[in-house]
Amino acid sequence: MKITILGAGGMGSRFALMLHKAENDVTLVDGWQQNIDAIRKDGLQAEFNGEPVTVHLPIYAPAEIDQLGEKAELIIAFTKSNQLKAMFEQVRPIIGPDTYVLCLLNGIGHEDILQEFVAADHLILGITMWTAGMTGPGHVTLLGEGEVELQNFAPAGLAFTKEVVSAFAAAGLNPKYSENVKYAIWRKACVNGTLNSLCSILDCNIGELGATAEAEALLKAIIAEFAQVAAHEGVTLDEAEVYTHIAQTFTAAIAAHYPSMYQDLIVNHRATEIDFINGAVWQKGQRYGIATPYCALLTQLIHAKEQLVGAK
Amino acid sequence: MKITILGAGGMGSRFALMLHKAENDVTLVDGWQQNIDAIRKDGLQAEFNGEPVTVHLPIYAPAEIDQLGEKAELIIAFTKSNQLKAMFEQVRPIIGPDTYVLCLLNGIGHEDILQEFVAADHLILGITMWTAGMTGPGHVTLLGEGEVELQNFAPAGLAFTKEVVSAFAAAGLNPKYSENVKYAIWRKACVNGTLNSLCSILDCNIGELGATAEAEALLKAIIAEFAQVAAHEGVTLDEAEVYTHIAQTFTAAIAAHYPSMYQDLIVNHRATEIDFINGAVWQKGQRYGIATPYCALLTQLIHAKEQLVGAK
Repeated sequence: MKITILGAGGMGSRFALMLHKAENDVTLVDGWQQNIDAIRKDGLQAEFNGEPVTVHLPIYAPAEIDQLGEKAELIIAFTKSNQLKAMFEQVRPIIGPDTYVLCLLNGIGHEDILQEFVAADHLILGITMWTAGMTGPGHVTLLGEGEVELQNFAPAGLAFTKEVVSAFAAAGLNPKYSENVKYAIWRKACVNGTLNSLCSILDCNIGELGATAEAEALLKAIIAEFAQVAAHEGVTLDEAEVYTHIAQTFTAAIAAHYPSMYQDLIVNHRATEIDFINGAVWQKGQRYGIATPYCALLTQLIHAKEQLVGAK
Repeated sequence: MKITILGAGGMGSRFALMLHKAENDVTLVDGWQQNIDAIRKDGLQAEFNGEPVTVHLPIYAPAEIDQLGEKAELIIAFTKSNQLKAMFEQVRPIIGPDTYVLCLLNGIGHEDILQEFVAADHLILGITMWTAGMTGPGHVTLLGEGEVELQNFAPAGLAFTKEVVSAFAAAGLNPKYSENVKYAIWRKACVNGTLNSLCSILDCNIGELGATAEAEALLKAIIAEFAQVAAHEGVTLDEAEVYTHIAQTFTAAIAAHYPSMYQDLIVNHRATEIDFINGAVWQKGQRYGIATPYCALLTQLIHAKEQLVGAK
């Protein structure tokens, strides 16, 4: 399959490497010049479950997109959520009527952006439990196992989505065709909408958050807002199950982990993806006439904090 | 007047010193042994508008209260809000049927605690704009000018409250008998309920908070919750006026200041007074059936942060 991956960070590099090894025709597009330079010079270098692996893949800056010459068959979006729209505007030249777009980003509302670029029946949504870490330009660390759940956004996209599932299976990505990927996306967004925003604003890791007396009430209030808004989009979240799913992280190995938003905001002083998590629930809640004050206040606090740390 | 001041911190020391100089009979009660020892040994030492002043005042630990031998005529409460109840339980021996209690603490709901100890017509409530800083055991820095607004909580307390006003006037405390001290208390609580909680959770000073794009929306949402709850207590806050009153601090000299809750929580890792500010609005809101989600979430975040920093 001819695959263009937008965003050669940790996760984009993982998918690129695994799909390339399974003999797909993989091209990278990335906005970070040092990363592009390193991958062009030395290849994409991964520590893949302890083994050093180097693969040579074509990589382009968005401004060089015209050099690709042909339309993409499948585009996989692995940018930051808040860079998704700008990236797609830049890569319009490789999006044709037959191009499919797969979005595995955390959060809510990416389909609204992506439908500005492809038809609904050429859109595939999903989530992934794979992890990946970027250790420097052109260098990633890929540990452990994961999986992917995905589903065509409109019925007519079914046949191609099944082809993607086959290609992913051949690459060892453990894909599962989902009959209700929207549920999976909302359920995962609840994880990010609680752990990411709260750990970032409280400056703590997941286990420390879980050890506070307020954790349960905070999680349940936030999940309730997500559930009310999700219901307006045809997704009936099981709030108790989602709470239990998130709360088990408090005592799991991941408890020592600082969520990605914490890394962005507190460690690296970067703009966060809050507008695609709590912020999306707030915005959709306004549209549907549902009060989501916890999501609203958390979004406001994170945005205020972004300004205070000079996030870009 | 025979006055017992509970809490010989910055503000208690200011009132003690000024009332003592005006020939009132002032006794201190304080819970910090090092402070007691220092004041007993060297007196209460103040830098009073640049002049060094030392006054020798009797000071007792709460456990020594029986040594006072007689009931207090006026007790002025200058403990931390969250220590108010425990302090009054310890000083019960000096509270008689003729004892009046004046509370000038920031926040809401102190009258509910104090009515467990004195009758409503022996309770005086107020606010003060005086400032004070404690620089060490027995040492305070007292700069600038201020004023006091106070009013008897029940009609029968009027005559004695006027006596307090006279005593305060003679001491240079600039008292004003208020016809609606509840309004003044709620208005000042709005200042604390916005600046204190937000600066503490965002780890910034007043000016930095004010410079964020979210400040206006945050302030207005919080003030609106205070106003709704205040209305149930017969206080009609002018939300626009309160907002303007608070927002002017963003560009005033005080902008460089970190509020007292920030000092408690972030600098000194002490328990905060949030339960008497946003927490009181939340609690009263629950009683009156009013949703106060911003106050609720801020209270929960501050309490979680207290646990995370190991506040005592």
